[in-house]
Amino acid sequence: MAPRDDLPNTNDLDNLRVVLVATRNPLNIGAAARALSNFGAAHLRVVNPYEVAFREARSAVGATQVLADAKEYANVSAAIADCRLVVGTTAAGRRELQLELRRLEVGARTILRQLKSGPVAILFGSEKVGLSNEDMSHCHWLMRIPTREAHGSMNLGQAVAVCLYELVRQSSSVTGEKPTRRKANTSAHESSLGAKAGDIERLTQLLCDVLRASGYVKPRVAHATEEKLRRMLRRLNLSADDAELWLGMHRQIQWKLDRTKELDTNEERDRSQS
Amino acid sequence: MAPRDDLPNTNDLDNLRVVLVATRNPLNIGAAARALSNFGAAHLRVVNPYEVAFREARSAVGATQVLADAKEYANVSAAIADCRLVVGTTAAGRRELQLELRRLEVGARTILRQLKSGPVAILFGSEKVGLSNEDMSHCHWLMRIPTREAHGSMNLGQAVAVCLYELVRQSSSVTGEKPTRRKANTSAHESSLGAKAGDIERLTQLLCDVLRASGYVKPRVAHATEEKLRRMLRRLNLSADDAELWLGMHRQIQWKLDRTKELDTNEERDRSQS
Repeated sequence: MAPRDDLPNTNDLDNLRVVLVATRNPLNIGAAARALSNFGAAHLRVVNPYEVAFREARSAVGATQVLADAKEYANVSAAIADCRLVVGTTAAGRRELQLELRRLEVGARTILRQLKSGPVAILFGSEKVGLSNEDMSHCHWLMRIPTREAHGSMNLGQAVAVCLYELVRQSSSVTGEKPTRRKANTSAHESSLGAKAGDIERLTQLLCDVLRASGYVKPRVAHATEEKLRRMLRRLNLSADDAELWLGMHRQIQWKLDRTKELDTNEERDRSQS
Repeated sequence: MAPRDDLPNTNDLDNLRVVLVATRNPLNIGAAARALSNFGAAHLRVVNPYEVAFREARSAVGATQVLADAKEYANVSAAIADCRLVVGTTAAGRRELQLELRRLEVGARTILRQLKSGPVAILFGSEKVGLSNEDMSHCHWLMRIPTREAHGSMNLGQAVAVCLYELVRQSSSVTGEKPTRRKANTSAHESSLGAKAGDIERLTQLLCDVLRASGYVKPRVAHATEEKLRRMLRRLNLSADDAELWLGMHRQIQWKLDRTKELDTNEERDRSQS
């Protein structure tokens, strides 16, 4: 049977990972699963859900398979390790955001391009507070559904459905837009194969170690510094090759710092012995 | 404060009536109310809900006002009487549809144009079976969210959210589309002020009476004929003036038929008396 052009092509969203972080109500996880199934996405990931028995959620009407296949993770870092683009969603109320914020229809364009070359994660925070600053520090940028400023916060299942709809809308567009119109939006990040989130996180940890060892990181603000570094590294949009290079460079620096520390210790011991 | 162009303009959806028909779960009515509030729509209408205490639905987070203001109706006809365009939503599964079916993004264009001149209703059917054929016979055309054929049926609250998102997306578009590109889609229906659904329904009833009186309607299939007529009259997309004209014409026909009946009866009586 020939594919109908008004229906989503399941392959388009095969690389998509919908990541629900610290969800409180299992009915919302079920509703999200249903939306995935409606729009042809299969990969649901759940980070640290409040209710461990979420797989029984009756709201996953027609989507029990998506819910059964959902993967559980202890933290965001693990849930996105294989992804080359990580996008957070936010109602963007009064909270100060330290990341670029894109409107859904603009962000979806970039996501669709990235999906052709590898896994992309879209993160949804908890019902009450959304994504934490630490969750967001794992993201390349943030995306916002155009809700009213006075009442921006959407129901989780509805927000997931709207985001998936926008992806399907653009991937099977009937408006006849030319792809050339989108050329101006292509950033360096998309022109080469992006680094995996897991590699960027390794680089983040390595850089933190190096900076701690170097005395750059003040213990009192260590956590804030780590988040700042994480955001900065994502903003760079490193290619896979560049990430490898950076990792190599900093492994060397770390070795040198350890060696120096060792020498210092030796010197101290020598001094105390003399 | 200057309006932000990435936020919906509340006035755009001021003429919108979201009509929930025979909804079973009050949580879905609450979720729909929340979506209305998120996207700047205010007018929720509820036809014959299963649960009369739906106004207490806790799912209407931040939208208690929309829920409190919701209007209740005993039937679809009453709920849409003031609307000049009535659009039904459907997952369009195996059921044979006797109305034009438009994809959401295409239908939304027409709806937005109509909203500038008067009230427009979008109908959502019950969770299990959607809109009935009779509900649909009140619609000018149907609209479909591009879900997978294998799992088309969406959660009600999610479907409402997606439809409202599409309207807001187009009314505050950032893609820079020129309105002239849409010119080709303007149908006769939109070029003049359309008739109110209440007037069209009056015309439908009048025509049914006339056809019944004329012996056209077979009692055994009266209901099916009425639905067929209703659909036909909506397809005509009558202007307000034309509807008035048609009503006048058929009132006259009805008077004539009644008069003929009266004469027949008189004649019969005369005959039996002679």
